[in-house]
Amino acid sequence: MILIGERINGLFRDVAAAIQARDPEPVQRLAVAQAEAGAAFLDVNTGPAAENPVEAMSWLVRVIEEVTDTPLCLDAGQPEVIEAGLKAVTRGRPIINSTTADPERLAHYLDLARHYGARLIVLTMNRQGVSRDAAERLALAMEAVVAADAAGFPIEELFIDPLVLPVNVGQEHAPAVLETLRQVKTLADPPPQTVVGLSNISQGCPHRPLLNRTFLAMAMANGLDAAIANVLDEELLATVAAARVLLNREIYSDAFLRRT
Amino acid sequence: MILIGERINGLFRDVAAAIQARDPEPVQRLAVAQAEAGAAFLDVNTGPAAENPVEAMSWLVRVIEEVTDTPLCLDAGQPEVIEAGLKAVTRGRPIINSTTADPERLAHYLDLARHYGARLIVLTMNRQGVSRDAAERLALAMEAVVAADAAGFPIEELFIDPLVLPVNVGQEHAPAVLETLRQVKTLADPPPQTVVGLSNISQGCPHRPLLNRTFLAMAMANGLDAAIANVLDEELLATVAAARVLLNREIYSDAFLRRT
Repeated sequence: MILIGERINGLFRDVAAAIQARDPEPVQRLAVAQAEAGAAFLDVNTGPAAENPVEAMSWLVRVIEEVTDTPLCLDAGQPEVIEAGLKAVTRGRPIINSTTADPERLAHYLDLARHYGARLIVLTMNRQGVSRDAAERLALAMEAVVAADAAGFPIEELFIDPLVLPVNVGQEHAPAVLETLRQVKTLADPPPQTVVGLSNISQGCPHRPLLNRTFLAMAMANGLDAAIANVLDEELLATVAAARVLLNREIYSDAFLRRT
Repeated sequence: MILIGERINGLFRDVAAAIQARDPEPVQRLAVAQAEAGAAFLDVNTGPAAENPVEAMSWLVRVIEEVTDTPLCLDAGQPEVIEAGLKAVTRGRPIINSTTADPERLAHYLDLARHYGARLIVLTMNRQGVSRDAAERLALAMEAVVAADAAGFPIEELFIDPLVLPVNVGQEHAPAVLETLRQVKTLADPPPQTVVGLSNISQGCPHRPLLNRTFLAMAMANGLDAAIANVLDEELLATVAAARVLLNREIYSDAFLRRT
């Protein structure tokens, strides 16, 4: 399981304030804490309120790279913000988070990813909106695979994100996501990887950590490869450690909880 | 999810002592506590040390039925102990737990189940021992389905138990069980149900509740119907409630944790 730390995101008030004030300390503290907790990547999102998101993204990448070698997951809706992040990165191979499956947009992002040696997350949605079920998600995932193949982009560096919605507003999407995770692995050989934005599942719900870790165990049982998640949640990490052992991906030892 | 309370089992010291002394109080307390926690069935096992298991089983059924209407899951290796339980039952339709998939044994238990109107758990093992992988488990499950069909026994009242082994001694069996749970549903229409003895997964391991609840969420994501489990573990029940909501089997409400 590739854990991508979700915390450096302008949707969180402390990060938004740090970006606004160009105060590196809160961002660097979160970068170190998430890396130490076992994040393989750090998600970096300026948030919707950042005044100059292009410059904010460059600044974030710079201050994070001052304190950790953990590679980044550059998270933005506008390609120019993503590209600012790609240009600023000096360490490791980042992930681009994300593009929709609209053909021109997909082609542009595949170019970007190839040019900068990045992996690419493709959401199973397009201009028509969010997929209604697993079949629609899989059709868009297949379009992404075909486009990547045509562009000579390695399929195993493509991450399909089946778009997790809050269970309290789109309950039927949760099993559709689980089904999609499983079926995506049949689309190509080698197959694309899969990723979810885990915390979305519990947005606006009580018992968020319970819903998050339960859904993560269920998604891992369906072959999930990566999750953008709260890696500072120790019970979530314990669930991941247990699930890895139970899937026989990590050799059992009585100390299984102490490894990340 | 059908939760079957595991606690009335002579493997537990308090229950063994109560059986030995024919003291109904500890057994009745566990029966009520498990029923109140939401158990749909109560497993009843005299344990290997009971001196007269046939009589002990009759006594257990009698004292449990004095305090609850919750139906029973009669758990023994010897058919005569099972039959003693079946004869003693006066409320509800019990589950027979369990037979191996050996043809003569299976035929005998199917007869017993039909005669007493009971459901039947079939373990995916035979005289040759425990299955090595999902394919062997499925082959035995298919034998059970064919035998039930030939005997006119309703397939949906057959519970296939893919045999959970402790993760610290047979780690490769955990993913095999998950795979079996999913594939069993393709064997017939309507398919047989599936059940696991959940606590086996963590036998001898540290962090047992974590391993149990994580494996249960993973098994539910693979279509598990029933589990013999510690229903007095509140975190396990919370995981079940969350997983039911996430599988869209229970309509979401903010109070999802308060329902069983």
